[in-house]
Amino acid sequence: MNHIRKPQITLIFSNFRFEKGINFFILNERSFIMYIDKEEMKQKNSKREAIIEAAVKVFAKKGFYNAKVNDVAKAAGVADGTIYLYFKNKDDLLINLFEDKMDHILNRFAAGLQNIHDPIEKLKTFIHVYFTLIEEDQQLAEVFQVELRQSAKFLKDYHNQKFLDYLNIIAGIVDEGKREGFFRPTLHTDIIKLMIFGAIDEVARQWILGADDKYSLEQASQELSRTIVDGLLAS
Amino acid sequence: MNHIRKPQITLIFSNFRFEKGINFFILNERSFIMYIDKEEMKQKNSKREAIIEAAVKVFAKKGFYNAKVNDVAKAAGVADGTIYLYFKNKDDLLINLFEDKMDHILNRFAAGLQNIHDPIEKLKTFIHVYFTLIEEDQQLAEVFQVELRQSAKFLKDYHNQKFLDYLNIIAGIVDEGKREGFFRPTLHTDIIKLMIFGAIDEVARQWILGADDKYSLEQASQELSRTIVDGLLAS
Repeated sequence: MNHIRKPQITLIFSNFRFEKGINFFILNERSFIMYIDKEEMKQKNSKREAIIEAAVKVFAKKGFYNAKVNDVAKAAGVADGTIYLYFKNKDDLLINLFEDKMDHILNRFAAGLQNIHDPIEKLKTFIHVYFTLIEEDQQLAEVFQVELRQSAKFLKDYHNQKFLDYLNIIAGIVDEGKREGFFRPTLHTDIIKLMIFGAIDEVARQWILGADDKYSLEQASQELSRTIVDGLLAS
Repeated sequence: MNHIRKPQITLIFSNFRFEKGINFFILNERSFIMYIDKEEMKQKNSKREAIIEAAVKVFAKKGFYNAKVNDVAKAAGVADGTIYLYFKNKDDLLINLFEDKMDHILNRFAAGLQNIHDPIEKLKTFIHVYFTLIEEDQQLAEVFQVELRQSAKFLKDYHNQKFLDYLNIIAGIVDEGKREGFFRPTLHTDIIKLMIFGAIDEVARQWILGADDKYSLEQASQELSRTIVDGLLAS
């Protein structure tokens, strides 16, 4: 009764590499082993990361519009063609840069907010974390604040989920504040979240552009915290 | 003793046209008459205006980056070369469009604010006029909110005096409110003017992009007025 089917390993034993770090051993017509070479994967990811870091520098310095893919390759120390293994074109590189960095930024907000319960403190912390991020990486801030807006593809065709996630953090804090009686219950959350984002963003952009050296980011953080919170408070 | 020197009009009497509408009659080596042909000037200005109006439509529809000078010429009903009589290139056309329209906008704000004395009412009127302008000309609003930001020349090299004039209207209202005891005297005017501009601008932009149909401009105007004024009030 006990038919144990002997595995038929015909050992076709061809192997091929799907992409760097991901390899296949073909056993027979129906079976294969996939194995991931961790060392190669790390190399691969580190090359992708090196390109993205180089892109931040090059876009901040030359401007997205003027920068060539070739400039990014040179700054990353890779051949021109290598960039096209990871990214379709300059716009695609910009969008990948944005997504990678936004993951990091969203994590920073999550970490900053995780142990705070009071919605007013949450809003202040959100604003503080925002300006801390600008201070920490001014080249990246310049790419986000100025260069991103020069890619028509980024602005028009790209469904920007990370930006929506970011706005939703603000919306969540506003809704919580309304629910718990801190903020006016009639506040229109969708307008208010954009208002808060726009206010912080513009103050940061003018600081980055150096158009206005009349305030520090620390002053901006405190001034905006107070003014926005006061504007939302339940009377 | 009385030597009255007879004027020597040798009547060289050549004439030439400096540019359309501006003509010179050369009288002699040292004298000329300049006369302006008002009818020609009007024609000239109306052609310039027609090009600018066409550019608003074309940039809003195709996007600044994709639009060709040729598309603007076609929409304005003029020959391609005509555009270069008035503007150096596409960026220059965009900047001229911006300056002309900003003059109109600044006049609208001045007219709206001229008979109001209470700084709180001034701020509310400012916000209301802003959203009225967006509602009135959505194509122009799209050019201002989206397309302008795609010109590297506009963003980086251009000294944008009209934008500073616009920010100064807000700063003036804030300073007056501080002086007269309506607003917190410690407010940092340079941060607050950018905060207000950024807040209004972002809410308007998302409405124009149609990303968010969850609010009307009328709602946005009221919500922002209340929230911003409450944020600034002296306690």
